[in-house]
Amino acid sequence: MIKHFVSLASFSVSDIQSLIDRAQYFSLHISQPDKIQHLLKNKIIVNAFYEPSTRTRCSFEMAAKRLGAEVINFVPENSSVKKGETIYDTLKTLESLGADGIVLRHSDDNVFSDLYEKFNTPLLNAGAGKYEHPSQGLLDLLTLKQEFGKLEGLKIAVCGDIKHSRVAGSLMVAAEKFGMEIYLCGPEAMLPNVSKPFIKKANFEEVLPIVDAVMMLRIQLERHASLELDAKAYHTQFGLTSERVNKMRKDAIIMHPGPFNRGVEIADEIVEHKQSRIFKQMGNGVFARMAILEWALGGSK
Amino acid sequence: MIKHFVSLASFSVSDIQSLIDRAQYFSLHISQPDKIQHLLKNKIIVNAFYEPSTRTRCSFEMAAKRLGAEVINFVPENSSVKKGETIYDTLKTLESLGADGIVLRHSDDNVFSDLYEKFNTPLLNAGAGKYEHPSQGLLDLLTLKQEFGKLEGLKIAVCGDIKHSRVAGSLMVAAEKFGMEIYLCGPEAMLPNVSKPFIKKANFEEVLPIVDAVMMLRIQLERHASLELDAKAYHTQFGLTSERVNKMRKDAIIMHPGPFNRGVEIADEIVEHKQSRIFKQMGNGVFARMAILEWALGGSK
Amino acid sequence: MIKHFVSLASFSVSDIQSLIDRAQYFSLHISQPDKIQHLLKNKIIVNAFYEPSTRTRCSFEMAAKRLGAEVINFVPENSSVKKGETIYDTLKTLESLGADGIVLRHSDDNVFSDLYEKFNTPLLNAGAGKYEHPSQGLLDLLTLKQEFGKLEGLKIAVCGDIKHSRVAGSLMVAAEKFGMEIYLCGPEAMLPNVSKPFIKKANFEEVLPIVDAVMMLRIQLERHASLELDAKAYHTQFGLTSERVNKMRKDAIIMHPGPFNRGVEIADEIVEHKQSRIFKQMGNGVFARMAILEWALGGSK
Repeated sequence: MIKHFVSLASFSVSDIQSLIDRAQYFSLHISQPDKIQHLLKNKIIVNAFYEPSTRTRCSFEMAAKRLGAEVINFVPENSSVKKGETIYDTLKTLESLGADGIVLRHSDDNVFSDLYEKFNTPLLNAGAGKYEHPSQGLLDLLTLKQEFGKLEGLKIAVCGDIKHSRVAGSLMVAAEKFGMEIYLCGPEAMLPNVSKPFIKKANFEEVLPIVDAVMMLRIQLERHASLELDAKAYHTQFGLTSERVNKMRKDAIIMHPGPFNRGVEIADEIVEHKQSRIFKQMGNGVFARMAILEWALGGSK
Repeated sequence: MIKHFVSLASFSVSDIQSLIDRAQYFSLHISQPDKIQHLLKNKIIVNAFYEPSTRTRCSFEMAAKRLGAEVINFVPENSSVKKGETIYDTLKTLESLGADGIVLRHSDDNVFSDLYEKFNTPLLNAGAGKYEHPSQGLLDLLTLKQEFGKLEGLKIAVCGDIKHSRVAGSLMVAAEKFGMEIYLCGPEAMLPNVSKPFIKKANFEEVLPIVDAVMMLRIQLERHASLELDAKAYHTQFGLTSERVNKMRKDAIIMHPGPFNRGVEIADEIVEHKQSRIFKQMGNGVFARMAILEWALGGSK
Repeated sequence: MIKHFVSLASFSVSDIQSLIDRAQYFSLHISQPDKIQHLLKNKIIVNAFYEPSTRTRCSFEMAAKRLGAEVINFVPENSSVKKGETIYDTLKTLESLGADGIVLRHSDDNVFSDLYEKFNTPLLNAGAGKYEHPSQGLLDLLTLKQEFGKLEGLKIAVCGDIKHSRVAGSLMVAAEKFGMEIYLCGPEAMLPNVSKPFIKKANFEEVLPIVDAVMMLRIQLERHASLELDAKAYHTQFGLTSERVNKMRKDAIIMHPGPFNRGVEIADEIVEHKQSRIFKQMGNGVFARMAILEWALGGSK
């Protein structure tokens, strides 16, 4: 069976737990190359990023190289894609070239569900459309597990443009599996309509004292002209300021998938606050992607 | 003697045969890295693509990495080239940096004949001007040899914009060496004037039943405004449709160098028809380029 | 102590001498990978070039790969940088991803002095602002040392837009340390105001017979509209022509950091003149950068 990595939804709780455990193993042994550099030796992974995302691309490339794999960066804008080639034909070309795995980021919500059954090369979701960004979901779970030792029962406030956030999408998928409670905060127009018992819309100020983690999302105000909110007004109403952090429990953590807007959704001085795990999340992203790549490409063929 | 890879014309039949045999060896052993990963160990190859061609660049990069070489992608548009540096100076810089081989694609017909004698680093032709694309030629020969066990006497119909096709150019060079017969099909304005006994202009419909392979070429109708052909009309007159495939022999194969236009020169349902070798050609491209790279860079210095 | 490579100014004479010696060692053993390929094994270096410079980027990439390191090319224009991310946040992201070293080129004069104390990952200066380009400085010293066996007492004429040249900036830093004399030549408007005993403005014609090396700098006349000099006039007044080379000592050498303008600051036939070391400098750039990378990243953590 080809191991496509499409959505956290298709994994069982114990499978996700195994990925988290493996990511944690990598985090502990990253400076011992003898333990990890051979795991994907002689594998060649192609990064195919149809949306620019240097951060996620570099994270997957770092993960692959730490495992001893080689990486080829396929750049759609310099290619036949410009001449109108379909994504199926482009990916089939990369498969035909012998890629051992294809890491794909694309703006189309359905790109993976349309394609994965037609490929014998593992396709790995590095962000697709607006619903899922499962490697980000996994790194968030790893970060929470490191902090609290468990995921069951954690309460997370998510604040920002949740309706268009695939990061939030993957978190909500995981929340259901692990029994976490999610509070959705932010301007009403940015919140999705959900009807699940473990996901509630909430007042940001009210939930700050009770949550284990606050996950802030990047705001692109230019997408929300009708809100008539400028950056300063947004910061006042929903930004994570020192005052708001003071309302959080001392053992609660601050998360953000990055890139962040200092002074908009998060105050400048909070980015590296002692309760912030923002840069730690970035490091965890490499460990999570190592676990994903090993799962999909490792082992004997 | 420095082993530049410029044109199939400069190779003897037995030299080309050796490259094909070696490419076939790689196709059979690609999943046994112990047999191939050491062949270009510690070599560093620079890809210098003055025309964007992600497909061919990725194919060379894959080939190099399967042989254990490292690859540096030199991107002319981000460089001194913009400031007016000559290609001689740019390539001399790459040679000075210690490149073990330079894979070059360029729009100038004469770029290799002007330059190769001035370089002690192997220069490898990844497509130059409108006459030759010898690594594509080699992969086409490999594909035909795999299918028919021999090249001598094969009959190939080529259909499309042959006048501006370096793919067709390299095929015609090989045809003369191996005693193949080439039928040139397509709009008269797209056919070159040739006067060789083994190359004949032909009616596409008439040659379909007698050829061993049909090689369709990508059509860029925007380059042929005077033809007053739209994609649909072209498809009707010259596209490879199911009806036309039905006229072919059952053991004849369909080829295309890619990228292809579904619904223009080839019908959607023919791309992966059981007689199509289009995606197989792409895989063969990696094996052919492995043979080329090993020939040029392998062995003791 | 984290070994940032920011400026030659912060190195002692004996430290620079050690780097030169190590670079010379690499120049002699570059074709013996067994001696060098293990030195940075399992290290992953990120190239972050905020100004396009394929030449310097490829040189660092070649240096890293010769030492067995892997390289990730971070491309700011395709990234969050476009969305307004600060350079601190971007570099902190790369550090968080686990980069073992970050090679940075940036237009800001103060980028390194503002940042380096905040990073536990070595930052390496690949050209910053208009004052220093220390890896170029080191390769120039290597080239001079190879030629003359010593640096002390060497007389160098530098000709061109010295005021805006970080190459000249790094040379002047080194000149003070090693007791070299520098003659500044070129249009008065392009010369900096300096008041050091070992740096003198001079008439180009007059110093040609007495110097050990002439270092020509690239001229971007479009930046100097007020000079009312066209390329031909510049060439006549300050270009290194055959006539001027004939005035040089036979053992004096010609240098240029590249890329050069044939027919502007240097005559076409002088680029590969027997006294020119221009392409040799490019090769030395790789050896110098190998020494720098080994110094910064090598050894046990």
